[in-house]
Amino acid sequence: MNQIDAMERLVNEFSKLPSVGKKSAQRFAYHVLTMNESDVRDFADALVAAKERIHTCKVCANFTDKEVCDICAKAKKEPIICVVKEPKDVTALEKAHEFNGTYHVLHGVINPLEGKGPNDINIRSLLTRVSEENISEVIVATNPDVEGEATAMYIANILKPLGIKVTRIAQGIAMGSELEYTDAVTLSKALSSRREM
Amino acid sequence: MNQIDAMERLVNEFSKLPSVGKKSAQRFAYHVLTMNESDVRDFADALVAAKERIHTCKVCANFTDKEVCDICAKAKKEPIICVVKEPKDVTALEKAHEFNGTYHVLHGVINPLEGKGPNDINIRSLLTRVSEENISEVIVATNPDVEGEATAMYIANILKPLGIKVTRIAQGIAMGSELEYTDAVTLSKALSSRREM
Repeated sequence: MNQIDAMERLVNEFSKLPSVGKKSAQRFAYHVLTMNESDVRDFADALVAAKERIHTCKVCANFTDKEVCDICAKAKKEPIICVVKEPKDVTALEKAHEFNGTYHVLHGVINPLEGKGPNDINIRSLLTRVSEENISEVIVATNPDVEGEATAMYIANILKPLGIKVTRIAQGIAMGSELEYTDAVTLSKALSSRREM
Repeated sequence: MNQIDAMERLVNEFSKLPSVGKKSAQRFAYHVLTMNESDVRDFADALVAAKERIHTCKVCANFTDKEVCDICAKAKKEPIICVVKEPKDVTALEKAHEFNGTYHVLHGVINPLEGKGPNDINIRSLLTRVSEENISEVIVATNPDVEGEATAMYIANILKPLGIKVTRIAQGIAMGSELEYTDAVTLSKALSSRREM
């Protein structure tokens, strides 16, 4: 393998990362060449270690290195499940310190254009959990876009007949934002979802 | 090492890459967790392989996996050295197919604010090359910014007394650009460096 190959191979690997183009990948690769050899080895080890140690929780499907993740394992949780699209959404919600139930990670949303149906995401185990864990409420916290809404509707349609309360996180103007710069769809949602003070 | 550690370690490694912030580093790390284990290993191998195999050419200091890089090794080159700041500048210039001499990579520029003087970059070996290789001209192709200009001046000052022709790549309006959107400094350079047609 000559220089061009080793370099091109690394550029190619970097350009597989989300929203990294050829130019950024080249910058990253050149940066790697300027790093200490031991630092590069640490980087490589961190990649493999993360992938080897981290898998999905057998209850909620969030990333964890245990059989059951820390959030699911913690005792005395409220009997509420918050459904999210991706593991990073769990991190974001946990930072809000508002929710004291468990999560359920779908690892995707229903997206007919990409050929993703309800069976391609982690919905089936949600049904099992709802009946086994004596859940009182399911909060659907998928993103407020077309696919997220469709997924929320689908989940509501299968859970409500089972007598489960299904709620959707509120949509409206973001804290600290200005009405002037808020888009029309968000404003219309904020108005129609107005609450009495 | 628990999940948070393995994840934080990987996020930390990614955030060392140039212009990668915490958010992008997290996106990259989550992406790695969704990759196949064998793909992650390939990525890690590519990192180590690039760093292990690629070092600097003993003549021009460009990155190579040989003792002398392909460009320096090629016979019948013009006796001209083009001085650049970084290895990626060599790639950019080679793509222009305009230059048929050899390169000299400084691995930096003179930058007093960052405490970088002439001895901290690869200038000394340029002097040796100029006398040993019977060089007729040195083109200084550092970037047209303050540090690049200062470095060009420094090189000109030490080489000219030795009877070497020292030139600077032309500065002016870029091909395909529009005068209307060209900054004032570039326009002023383009005017003062005008050529008779």
